[in-house]
Amino acid sequence: MHTYEYPRPALTVDCIVFGLDAQQELKVMLIQRDIPPFQGQWAIPGGFVRIDETLEAAALRELREETGIYDVYLEQLYTFGDLARDPRDRTVTVAYYALINLVEQKIKASTDARDASWFPLSKIPKLAFDHDKILKTAIARLRGKIRYEPIGFELLATKFTLSQLQKLYETVLDHPLDKRNFRKKILSMELLIDSGEVEQGVSHRAAKLYQFDESKYLQLKQNGFNFEI
Amino acid sequence: MHTYEYPRPALTVDCIVFGLDAQQELKVMLIQRDIPPFQGQWAIPGGFVRIDETLEAAALRELREETGIYDVYLEQLYTFGDLARDPRDRTVTVAYYALINLVEQKIKASTDARDASWFPLSKIPKLAFDHDKILKTAIARLRGKIRYEPIGFELLATKFTLSQLQKLYETVLDHPLDKRNFRKKILSMELLIDSGEVEQGVSHRAAKLYQFDESKYLQLKQNGFNFEI
Repeated sequence: MHTYEYPRPALTVDCIVFGLDAQQELKVMLIQRDIPPFQGQWAIPGGFVRIDETLEAAALRELREETGIYDVYLEQLYTFGDLARDPRDRTVTVAYYALINLVEQKIKASTDARDASWFPLSKIPKLAFDHDKILKTAIARLRGKIRYEPIGFELLATKFTLSQLQKLYETVLDHPLDKRNFRKKILSMELLIDSGEVEQGVSHRAAKLYQFDESKYLQLKQNGFNFEI
Repeated sequence: MHTYEYPRPALTVDCIVFGLDAQQELKVMLIQRDIPPFQGQWAIPGGFVRIDETLEAAALRELREETGIYDVYLEQLYTFGDLARDPRDRTVTVAYYALINLVEQKIKASTDARDASWFPLSKIPKLAFDHDKILKTAIARLRGKIRYEPIGFELLATKFTLSQLQKLYETVLDHPLDKRNFRKKILSMELLIDSGEVEQGVSHRAAKLYQFDESKYLQLKQNGFNFEI
């Protein structure tokens, strides 16, 4: 039964994957387009939704096909439907985002896929379509969430130093934080567990390694808080 | 240029409009379907996106056509794309929501439209399609927002009592609040201005009427806070 015969917009999904590398640098996965439009330009991975797959399934499929990344937790970001965002045709896209750790490979994140590459947030090239706007929306979402939810569980290694956690906050918030205040605030939340271990192979005085208290993390994520720093 | 010839999902928009009435009851606008599927059942207003209109324009057009409501500020809620959500065809819907005051008619909100009616949140009938799920998502969003953003500007009359504001919080949070704590907390935020007036035509002792401090309201909305009550 096909009761709606008017012309339909095309429907796509796009996936913004943020990854934190060994230097605590926040990066985003981009692919280089090998066909028009925007041939040769970098873009957020994504593609058309098939008639028989859910939006999430389409997003995961495109991500795997285009970047080798799979088995990530995707959160829906926003749906973009400006009339002229795709020169081929009227196209509406549902954007998703994911956070991953690039060191421990908690997920499979191949960068061997042809034309797929991690870009630091500070070095994003001009993107195809309205992907600059989509990426900006994703960064704004991260920046908003960090205020009322804990962040870092998916991005950081299992054990991390307070400096590494602070660097993540500074990167997302895009401004430096006072070290003493940050530590006081984050420790008072009882979100972290002292692992009893210290950093290995550093020339400076080895810092303590912490882990997230998973149940406390989930509880704070559920109930929210206000991280004013 | 039409380079994508695979079958496309149909694309619709749906609008959840919350309205607060004179008794401070939170209601939602529903329409009764006069054609199959789900003929005779109540549903969230909405309809198909035309090829030449943005998602927001489609949402506003459908809302006006089906309910007489226009000139409201719509916020995007979420996009729903389960495979079987529409028995006619694979249909993806972008849901929006709006908050309005039903007393002062800050916006035009006709309830004369055929088969359109305001339902208290406590008396929502079984809805068509997956609209129960969409409405639940909208209520959860409101409940989430109230924790870290001020609420009430669009919903309450220009001047209101602290009891009326408290009732709104209780309705959205779905549990009673301690009167003394609520007042202390809300007044400490410097969000409210004493209008110098009191309620008219009440048999009990007339309560003070407050207004929102618009610039403080916007500032708190932008920066967020944590309203722990």
